[in-house]
Amino acid sequence: MTYCVGIKLNAGLVFLSDSRTNAGVDNISTYRKMIIYEKPGDRFMVLLSAGNLSISQSVREILQVEQLKETPESEPLTIWNCNSMFDACRILGQAVRHVYQRDAQSLKHAGVEFNVNLIFGGQIRGENMRLFQVYSAGNFIEATAETPYFQIGEYKYGKPVLDRVLTPETDLDEAAKCALVSMDSTMKSNLSVGPPLDLVVYEANRYETDKVVCIDMQNPYYRMLHTGWGQKLREVFDSLEDPVWDDAHTDTPLRCEDTTGGRNKPLKKITRPEEKLI
Amino acid sequence: MTYCVGIKLNAGLVFLSDSRTNAGVDNISTYRKMIIYEKPGDRFMVLLSAGNLSISQSVREILQVEQLKETPESEPLTIWNCNSMFDACRILGQAVRHVYQRDAQSLKHAGVEFNVNLIFGGQIRGENMRLFQVYSAGNFIEATAETPYFQIGEYKYGKPVLDRVLTPETDLDEAAKCALVSMDSTMKSNLSVGPPLDLVVYEANRYETDKVVCIDMQNPYYRMLHTGWGQKLREVFDSLEDPVWDDAHTDTPLRCEDTTGGRNKPLKKITRPEEKLI
Repeated sequence: MTYCVGIKLNAGLVFLSDSRTNAGVDNISTYRKMIIYEKPGDRFMVLLSAGNLSISQSVREILQVEQLKETPESEPLTIWNCNSMFDACRILGQAVRHVYQRDAQSLKHAGVEFNVNLIFGGQIRGENMRLFQVYSAGNFIEATAETPYFQIGEYKYGKPVLDRVLTPETDLDEAAKCALVSMDSTMKSNLSVGPPLDLVVYEANRYETDKVVCIDMQNPYYRMLHTGWGQKLREVFDSLEDPVWDDAHTDTPLRCEDTTGGRNKPLKKITRPEEKLI
Repeated sequence: MTYCVGIKLNAGLVFLSDSRTNAGVDNISTYRKMIIYEKPGDRFMVLLSAGNLSISQSVREILQVEQLKETPESEPLTIWNCNSMFDACRILGQAVRHVYQRDAQSLKHAGVEFNVNLIFGGQIRGENMRLFQVYSAGNFIEATAETPYFQIGEYKYGKPVLDRVLTPETDLDEAAKCALVSMDSTMKSNLSVGPPLDLVVYEANRYETDKVVCIDMQNPYYRMLHTGWGQKLREVFDSLEDPVWDDAHTDTPLRCEDTTGGRNKPLKKITRPEEKLI
């Protein structure tokens, strides 16, 4: 499996990916799942991929030469010359469909689902930053202020912390930290997600970035975050009052009067009477 | 969906279940997923269920009258007279198989999978506490000291906190708190898990309990936990240093020398040169 997250903030974009792939549990390898496209001063784009590795590698390969023609006469659009991220994402969707046409039938014969999930975001001069999630059918959705992030792959373990922290106003370094904590929780509970991690941070209206880093388990910042988060989470956990069953001793009793007119009563037990010794 | 967790500690057992069921997103109802069986002084058992509601309700109904006969002559075993939790769990497995024989073919015709997942734990006088997870085929596994808990249903969101906190030495109130935090994270990120919650705490060698509570969103303890965990998690998050891209200013740089002989270098970008204005 895989875990990737892409975040769109007012201040910029954050992308993070793991690099573990597996075909079953006894065939685990390292493949990096991020591609960065950059034409300084003009456009900056990042692609994250999850799903079947042969499909996502083919999509990445084809994307570089994929051309979209609106009409037979019109100039062919590529990710390098199109005027909007929406068009760039249409080109990516078309690349997915080309791989589908080439491979889906044979994959189906082999009992393999055509499964690819992509996060694609960036900025092209003349418009604001945009972030998309692209599905196996080549269709896609765009992130909005209400949901400023997308996840692909093993997304559930690391979702709660994103839900708690991220808003469009979050600053870039904080969002990068949040993505790394989300990844750390995922790696703690799921073996199919693993290091090294690729992290990219893009500042709005720069059309390039030098904030690109590969993070392994010896990385000093990641080690601090991993250890610190684990320890402090534990301290927070310990600092919260344990449940008190007798409500005489606490302001926050676990047992209290039912205020729902009897709907939420404690469960009745199914009982057998105690046997009396004769 | 559902989220249930059962925990076995040296000090006792903790069981927690939500009560949301859904058939699609437009048909959401409340069904409580815990059953408590108690014969004071002799045995105490709890059953948690996830999966297809018609199957789990049938299993619960049948379990009360299910009989296991080792040989045609032997006394029939029920959950009320068997001498071990292992036998009680075999009786539960047999109840699952009876429902399978009755319903699976018709469910298959309707395109519905025979899907039921159960957690079953407790203590029968004469042996230690035991905790089992039972699958759709009626087979089961038992919790051991290395993995002192089972989850069924939407288990991923709430798994990291269990992995961080629980050991067999954890005390009962702390484990109950941990289960509630795990449930809180799950409810925050997944609509298919919802209140009220049923919580039972059993102390070892008591063969009965009065620690049974139904927790709705007005419950003072749950509200304290929900608010406190969210706020303090945020404080911990804020207290951890943000990543610093320039390593002159920090002991824990995000960017550092590659110590892996070049394997974990930052990704190369795919670039196009900046266009020169003529």
